[in-house]
Amino acid sequence: MKTISFLPLLFIFIVLNHQVSSQSKKRLRDHGIEIGILKTGTQNAITDVPGVKVGHVTLNIGDSVRTGVTAILPHDGNIFQSKVPAAMYIGNGFGKLMGYSQVEELGNLETPVILTNTLSVPTAAKGLIKYTLNLPGNENVRSVNPIVGETNDGYLNDIRGMHVKEEHVSEAISNATSGPVDEGNVGAGTGTICFGFKGGIGTASRVLPEEMGGYTVGVLIQTNFGGVLEINGTPIGVELEQYAFKDILGSADGSCMIVVFTNAPITSRNLKRLAKRAIMGLAKTGGIASNGSGDYVIAVSTAENLRIPYQSNDPIIQNHELRNNQMSPLFLATIEATEEAIINSLFAANTMEGRNGHVIKALPIDKTLKLLKKYGK
Amino acid sequence: MKTISFLPLLFIFIVLNHQVSSQSKKRLRDHGIEIGILKTGTQNAITDVPGVKVGHVTLNIGDSVRTGVTAILPHDGNIFQSKVPAAMYIGNGFGKLMGYSQVEELGNLETPVILTNTLSVPTAAKGLIKYTLNLPGNENVRSVNPIVGETNDGYLNDIRGMHVKEEHVSEAISNATSGPVDEGNVGAGTGTICFGFKGGIGTASRVLPEEMGGYTVGVLIQTNFGGVLEINGTPIGVELEQYAFKDILGSADGSCMIVVFTNAPITSRNLKRLAKRAIMGLAKTGGIASNGSGDYVIAVSTAENLRIPYQSNDPIIQNHELRNNQMSPLFLATIEATEEAIINSLFAANTMEGRNGHVIKALPIDKTLKLLKKYGK
Amino acid sequence: MKTISFLPLLFIFIVLNHQVSSQSKKRLRDHGIEIGILKTGTQNAITDVPGVKVGHVTLNIGDSVRTGVTAILPHDGNIFQSKVPAAMYIGNGFGKLMGYSQVEELGNLETPVILTNTLSVPTAAKGLIKYTLNLPGNENVRSVNPIVGETNDGYLNDIRGMHVKEEHVSEAISNATSGPVDEGNVGAGTGTICFGFKGGIGTASRVLPEEMGGYTVGVLIQTNFGGVLEINGTPIGVELEQYAFKDILGSADGSCMIVVFTNAPITSRNLKRLAKRAIMGLAKTGGIASNGSGDYVIAVSTAENLRIPYQSNDPIIQNHELRNNQMSPLFLATIEATEEAIINSLFAANTMEGRNGHVIKALPIDKTLKLLKKYGK
Amino acid sequence: MKTISFLPLLFIFIVLNHQVSSQSKKRLRDHGIEIGILKTGTQNAITDVPGVKVGHVTLNIGDSVRTGVTAILPHDGNIFQSKVPAAMYIGNGFGKLMGYSQVEELGNLETPVILTNTLSVPTAAKGLIKYTLNLPGNENVRSVNPIVGETNDGYLNDIRGMHVKEEHVSEAISNATSGPVDEGNVGAGTGTICFGFKGGIGTASRVLPEEMGGYTVGVLIQTNFGGVLEINGTPIGVELEQYAFKDILGSADGSCMIVVFTNAPITSRNLKRLAKRAIMGLAKTGGIASNGSGDYVIAVSTAENLRIPYQSNDPIIQNHELRNNQMSPLFLATIEATEEAIINSLFAANTMEGRNGHVIKALPIDKTLKLLKKYGK
Repeated sequence: MKTISFLPLLFIFIVLNHQVSSQSKKRLRDHGIEIGILKTGTQNAITDVPGVKVGHVTLNIGDSVRTGVTAILPHDGNIFQSKVPAAMYIGNGFGKLMGYSQVEELGNLETPVILTNTLSVPTAAKGLIKYTLNLPGNENVRSVNPIVGETNDGYLNDIRGMHVKEEHVSEAISNATSGPVDEGNVGAGTGTICFGFKGGIGTASRVLPEEMGGYTVGVLIQTNFGGVLEINGTPIGVELEQYAFKDILGSADGSCMIVVFTNAPITSRNLKRLAKRAIMGLAKTGGIASNGSGDYVIAVSTAENLRIPYQSNDPIIQNHELRNNQMSPLFLATIEATEEAIINSLFAANTMEGRNGHVIKALPIDKTLKLLKKYGK
Repeated sequence: MKTISFLPLLFIFIVLNHQVSSQSKKRLRDHGIEIGILKTGTQNAITDVPGVKVGHVTLNIGDSVRTGVTAILPHDGNIFQSKVPAAMYIGNGFGKLMGYSQVEELGNLETPVILTNTLSVPTAAKGLIKYTLNLPGNENVRSVNPIVGETNDGYLNDIRGMHVKEEHVSEAISNATSGPVDEGNVGAGTGTICFGFKGGIGTASRVLPEEMGGYTVGVLIQTNFGGVLEINGTPIGVELEQYAFKDILGSADGSCMIVVFTNAPITSRNLKRLAKRAIMGLAKTGGIASNGSGDYVIAVSTAENLRIPYQSNDPIIQNHELRNNQMSPLFLATIEATEEAIINSLFAANTMEGRNGHVIKALPIDKTLKLLKKYGK
Repeated sequence: MKTISFLPLLFIFIVLNHQVSSQSKKRLRDHGIEIGILKTGTQNAITDVPGVKVGHVTLNIGDSVRTGVTAILPHDGNIFQSKVPAAMYIGNGFGKLMGYSQVEELGNLETPVILTNTLSVPTAAKGLIKYTLNLPGNENVRSVNPIVGETNDGYLNDIRGMHVKEEHVSEAISNATSGPVDEGNVGAGTGTICFGFKGGIGTASRVLPEEMGGYTVGVLIQTNFGGVLEINGTPIGVELEQYAFKDILGSADGSCMIVVFTNAPITSRNLKRLAKRAIMGLAKTGGIASNGSGDYVIAVSTAENLRIPYQSNDPIIQNHELRNNQMSPLFLATIEATEEAIINSLFAANTMEGRNGHVIKALPIDKTLKLLKKYGK
Repeated sequence: MKTISFLPLLFIFIVLNHQVSSQSKKRLRDHGIEIGILKTGTQNAITDVPGVKVGHVTLNIGDSVRTGVTAILPHDGNIFQSKVPAAMYIGNGFGKLMGYSQVEELGNLETPVILTNTLSVPTAAKGLIKYTLNLPGNENVRSVNPIVGETNDGYLNDIRGMHVKEEHVSEAISNATSGPVDEGNVGAGTGTICFGFKGGIGTASRVLPEEMGGYTVGVLIQTNFGGVLEINGTPIGVELEQYAFKDILGSADGSCMIVVFTNAPITSRNLKRLAKRAIMGLAKTGGIASNGSGDYVIAVSTAENLRIPYQSNDPIIQNHELRNNQMSPLFLATIEATEEAIINSLFAANTMEGRNGHVIKALPIDKTLKLLKKYGK
């Protein structure tokens, strides 16, 4: 069977890719550029939220497979048995994310969040269901709401070939670690394009001052959208003469999956409000949520006291959560972390050649830094 | 490979099942019971909407496979290239329907509607994507929004076994015909349960008087929910001593997928309004949209002048559609057809034994008819 | 000034009206007809929810003023300072209710719920704001979200005359009592029409069995809508030959305001789910939520431990609330109480003559009871 | 009566204020700063959309009345008889805008859009209803959906005094003109605060290139919100050391009403998408849609062929409208015009002293221009 035969090959590519992406490129902040007024967490990554882990499977194979899977885990346990509060917001719904309506109805998440490419959502969802059914303790589970988001990497990737396999989901989950998160051409971001440059996975975080609760907000993002790129308020897209509507109508299309995790104790209504702010962060990079864009945000609270047991004899759940009037700093944190995560994806991504010899160049870092300097940043 | 080996067997079962369900049972109206004040179409089925076709694949195999696939087609052409106006409404969102958000955003449907069981949604979605990618004319398509609804047949069916295969989707589509629609234990309704009795597929239609436009509304439904059964206002559930909360908390759970097609020329906003009324029809049967229910309605207009070409040089689309104030009779038609489609599913379904020797009895028709008589109907 | 001169007159009318409506008519259950399977509270009224009070001001003056104000209070205290969890659902939004979006965003209610006629919403809202600003403790309040619902009584009432005055709001609030609730041609229901018969205010309640939590759900309703009347499943509208679409297109128009209060400890997300079920109760009476209908539901939890202080030093709120899987019995209770409250409004209302000599007859109780008997109820 | 006695006074203030605001201050573009890549209309105002008019009533009276009314008209005719397609989007719903749900349900607007202060919404709504009832041709109208938006000017204005009168609405409407629009401390913006500086009314427009349809998008905005001010990507708030969360928690509160008009032929679903993009423009100025913010957007198409007659014998409406894939340039236009309208409100507003001696300073233009220069703009 094909899957077996290219697995070793795949392994090599993952290893290579990991090495490359880990070594190579400095992040925005490493160049002294700071977005916003709030502090970052230690890693400036979604994994700064305690307990959160991220894993990738990168499928960078031959001349036309440029895709992958990324898994984000809210905690180490059996998520189906110990669900977490969640909500979603859709900036623009030209997308195929699976799992939206149950999250909205019940206010919780019962699987890891999986990201992949558009046409591989069903495969990944099936993989995620199987993973969940097979977890110890889930022997009698007969209903699972898999959360699988996507963007369309079909320019660089042979997306019609559906190269993602079910088992890549459990691989991505078992790859998941805390600590630094690989960015750029990895996982679900392997073949994506952002503002006409090579996009990919990006992440960032913010930590509130103690007097505002000291909570952490982490964002992970799969960037595949367009618009008129701004970096920290600097008109990079216009200066580099690459932006939507410069030449062709509709070139802003594409999508963005945004994952917002926080340890702030908030449940579904306020998580939905948080999710809405992520699109405001996207706006600050020059994204416009174009007609062809699938811009989905899932917001999750990892607060331990808000876990929702699958089964319980107690009819009552004790939601000790933030009052509405505590939300504003978390809104700002979400906006800042989203903006920076997008830019981080651009700084991390490398030029890639893929399907049909298509080439998407990386953001030219040197020119960009010069422009940032020119604009006083 | 396993799939191949049981396909002939499957074929026999489909044939058998078709014969059985076609021959056997009279529908509610054949017993002289009429729901509502509007007339039905010729078939009293969703296929009364011109051009609409329905196809089933029924998987009634061995002692524990009790599931299937149902396909509903708005027209005979390439639906991706010639999309139809659509909207959705969610009565209760404890469900896994795939495709919701893009329909909401863009106001159209680009695939047939597929129904199956909960854990087979990804498989069916993959099958539906492949079917769409492989249609002549779709060679360059790299994004498809598959609409796959579901209910959970896991009491009678070995749902964890995921017995639905990708190819069942294209089979169901190629099985699709106009004319009478098989009801009861067929297709996606093979293993479902409704008000504690055997549920399944049901369908009904209404035709407006000419002075109200003469439009047809057709409903097809996959019934798998609970509550306190009423048939045409008669308290059948209480009389038969089988209803939710009689003994056990939560026994109203389950789900209902509702497909509403009409040839009335209406676009997304008014289609969403139509979709909302289907839940009012469900209410009239005693359904309560319980906590564990996934009650999804998709409403579609088949009006030929409202087709949406995938590609067009014209930036303008000419939506000649009904004014808001023409909607009320269509609302009533939707309510009536939904109510009757649910009852039709109960009248058509036969007692079934499935997984672990579980048995679900059919609605006792004789007793029911006596009760209807007792209550003056 | 005019207002002053007719106030004594008004007082007499209120007194008369109260006497009439209190004495005269038996409710549905007094005739031995029981809707649903759950028990009612002591009064079978929204006031069965502990602490809830209802007050009316009835403006039945001269030959063309047929309107009024109804106030529903969740508790006796300063509601602005001690808000209650709330959510809304809109069955059909052709209406002018004020206050929707803040309830949705913040999940709470900070004023009594006021009902009146369509064109008097601003006057009532201003009255409600003034009432709130003037409460002891609210001296520094500069923002109030008044909740004012409405239906259009313009057939019997000189609605363009805007006869409701600001002070009627505080009167209705100070009139509010626990215990029995006047129904029919009182308060905001004075001039309304339901299924072509005289509608008005109706109320009902349900109490869950102890093993389901023992909670009470109370509904109060202002009925002003159309459709094809059914009472407890009996086709009264058809039998009496008075129903929508019998003669004229659009005659189903009108609106329905539904207020659902419960002492079950639930917050906004689950309250919204509760609110959605009220429309299912409306459906069971034959309502169709027609195009011209404004069908709004507000659901409120009066649970004392869920009160939301306007100001607090604690950033955390302790929401000890029901798990999702406890909701189904409350859904059923809401459906049943809504259905019965509507019928109660019809049984209580008397024939009324109003503007331009328009006359709307009361539901003919004797004929109705005979029909209920004929249909085995 | 009081109203009469201060009307002459009011008149003088209006005149004075008009003179001041018309003469005095240069707009952002007059200083050579251009936001975005699209061109503006002639006036760079919402009135660039053909037929649109704006009128203000400014109540700047004594030492504590700092409020007013702004009216925006989509066309010159009787709007109730000739409605326009409309939709709304709520960025954050801590607000009291009246009229939301009917716009959402029916997809149209039937009155001018009125803006005022929070506690004056009912008064303005009543004024707007009376205005509408009294229009020739509306003699039999008995239901009106008034659209009244607001922000809270209670820091500078004696908002509890409710100084807006019903007649100010018809005054603002009759004041309405095409051509240049007064900005800053006028109309509903008289007493508002934005990013800690004096806010007010702002407006801007964008015109698409002919090959994208040549349509105009105009935005008018009432700015009263907070955050971390950026002007064209320049961190003005941080540089001037005035921004949310610098000292006090929650100082980002406030609200923003955004009115988006376009002559592009689009109906409700796509207008709602347009409305959503306005919040992305707000984000680019550093707004965060804080907890206490009421951020409402109403989007309207003035396209003549999409007018909706109140009464018509034709059951069909001919919506010749843009295809979904034409929307992206309009999204960008909305984002850019919103961003610039906000900044225009800041540039136009003058320092104001109001209630209790509270003073809010205008944005220091010289310092701001220096900073813009420093940052290369």
